[in-house]
Amino acid sequence: MDETPRPALASIPNVLLAEIRNNASLRDDGLWLVDRRRLPAVVEYICCPTVEDVARAIEAMVVQGGTDIAFVAGFGLLLSARELEGKGAGPPGLRRGLALAADRLKRTRPTGSHLRVLVDDLYGAAEAAGFQDPTAVMSARLEWALNENDQRVRRTGALAAQLLRGGDAVLTICYPGPALLYMLAACRDEGREVSVICAETRPYLQGARLTAHAVSQLGYTPTVITDGMVGHCMAGGLIQACAVGADRVACDGTVANKVGTLQAAIAARHFGVPFYVLAVSGPDPSTEVGTAIPVEHRDPQEVLTFRGTPIAPPAAQALYPAFDLTPPALISAIVTSSGIHSPFWLPGRENHWSTRSP
Amino acid sequence: MDETPRPALASIPNVLLAEIRNNASLRDDGLWLVDRRRLPAVVEYICCPTVEDVARAIEAMVVQGGTDIAFVAGFGLLLSARELEGKGAGPPGLRRGLALAADRLKRTRPTGSHLRVLVDDLYGAAEAAGFQDPTAVMSARLEWALNENDQRVRRTGALAAQLLRGGDAVLTICYPGPALLYMLAACRDEGREVSVICAETRPYLQGARLTAHAVSQLGYTPTVITDGMVGHCMAGGLIQACAVGADRVACDGTVANKVGTLQAAIAARHFGVPFYVLAVSGPDPSTEVGTAIPVEHRDPQEVLTFRGTPIAPPAAQALYPAFDLTPPALISAIVTSSGIHSPFWLPGRENHWSTRSP
Repeated sequence: MDETPRPALASIPNVLLAEIRNNASLRDDGLWLVDRRRLPAVVEYICCPTVEDVARAIEAMVVQGGTDIAFVAGFGLLLSARELEGKGAGPPGLRRGLALAADRLKRTRPTGSHLRVLVDDLYGAAEAAGFQDPTAVMSARLEWALNENDQRVRRTGALAAQLLRGGDAVLTICYPGPALLYMLAACRDEGREVSVICAETRPYLQGARLTAHAVSQLGYTPTVITDGMVGHCMAGGLIQACAVGADRVACDGTVANKVGTLQAAIAARHFGVPFYVLAVSGPDPSTEVGTAIPVEHRDPQEVLTFRGTPIAPPAAQALYPAFDLTPPALISAIVTSSGIHSPFWLPGRENHWSTRSP
Repeated sequence: MDETPRPALASIPNVLLAEIRNNASLRDDGLWLVDRRRLPAVVEYICCPTVEDVARAIEAMVVQGGTDIAFVAGFGLLLSARELEGKGAGPPGLRRGLALAADRLKRTRPTGSHLRVLVDDLYGAAEAAGFQDPTAVMSARLEWALNENDQRVRRTGALAAQLLRGGDAVLTICYPGPALLYMLAACRDEGREVSVICAETRPYLQGARLTAHAVSQLGYTPTVITDGMVGHCMAGGLIQACAVGADRVACDGTVANKVGTLQAAIAARHFGVPFYVLAVSGPDPSTEVGTAIPVEHRDPQEVLTFRGTPIAPPAAQALYPAFDLTPPALISAIVTSSGIHSPFWLPGRENHWSTRSP
């Protein structure tokens, strides 16, 4: 029995980043993706004709965000099935080809759990059908997962809105995904105006570029700060809550999210500011403890340059851990579509994203 | 009686940012300054013919760092005296003109104390001489202060080196000034190799550009991280100590320094990493408590753009507090030329920078 209260769900028209369908479109010539590296300056699409192109687009940050890269990988697997079927491959060839494609996609970005879970789920659906007509089988499954995710995101946003009071300024890091937007829309629907402070999130500036873009499309005026200003803003009473996303939640309540999340959580604890994670789904059942989460290290050149221009002397080296791990003791609540949870008592595996049967 | 131990002082050849004399040169046509905004890509000089040009160069970050902007302002006051004397101004005209120039210079950047102290000191010297030949009077005073500062910086670096063990990685923020370089040189002289991690320090990237430049000129390979990675690096045991500068130290032990310092200090406390301030001089005697320090707010456009290119949507606004205030409870030690002090027991006003008589 589901005892979770169900607030009314808000709707969001015309926000590019509110739905993966606005950003990724499977057409005859390949998967078309909005190139998020160019946002918000221009809305430019690029076409990925093959699964390898999709994998490279994920690696190159054409698309980002745990759930979004998962769906794009799912579309990549469809692309692979379509190509194999077009070449007349039978079930054995489809099994081999799809296994290779799934493996390639799962190697793109290791930290988030959603991509692996969805790719395995789609492959499992094709396998369960004996690799008969896998394009149609996986397509139906992906369509269901997209709808399911949209509903979960909206429920998560509605629940998270209950945590905010009118006048609160909410700190975000990176782009926490559309749950943030639904949270804001729900607050507005309920007559509580809140404001959003976006940590810019170097080196890719997802906060300044993507979150500020999405939030302003929603009719809010986002305030951008550099990543070093979080503590100062909290000290000055400018931040009443933090709301971040999650690339993976371990069963022990550890949250992997964009690097910078951990020190914001430490500062929030220091200043007594609540720190909320908009996780949408429950913990990854295959990750018992946070220490098991692999933190992706990206090319240090991405830190040493800004849009291709060097910002440091040639002799400098750099580190680029793309994520960090925030322990449960620093987290006030993990919000999923099923409720507002203590990080120490999370819903079980039956609640995990996309593992529930359609 | 001075009981402070006196370690041997290291010397640093050929590091551009190790001495203000390498960066600022008063010539017949004006004050020539290295444009630090262009470093390390190019070493380009700009000329400030008048005190107003000097004031604007300080405001525009052509030069940065509490002590360096102080000396540049001092040169600006000399420039003003030279111009007034060249026009044949007598003592009353010199008094008026220099008072206006001093006032203009002190309004450039409000947070640091050194600029105000040095400008007042130079003006006081001219006043004490009845505004007779103020160029020569202030020039001698400035020359003394430059030498005094060099000695203090070297002593501070030598003392700070005692705080480090071989193999330590030291986190820096912004460019903490040459005391950092002398600290590294002293460690090397004493056979202890340490390494430097530079937080890039958005929006001006002084860490990636200036500290990494100076440290690499010293023969070290700096490691650049984004400002959001400090917590993650501490969690991973990659940072054994923090060494930051100070734009102003209040008598209560509060330190004003580049924004980002506070949250690094909070993270350091969380992870048990010592947090050292290379203050060089003691507290500003006219600032009893940290809350009295005005935090400069700069043009938010400097956050919303990167070298002139917008990084956020037009609808976004920004905050740009250039400094933050770190309370004494988060500071392990404040290192000055007179010793390694608890932030709760600082040397008195007789130790303040440039207020000691020549």
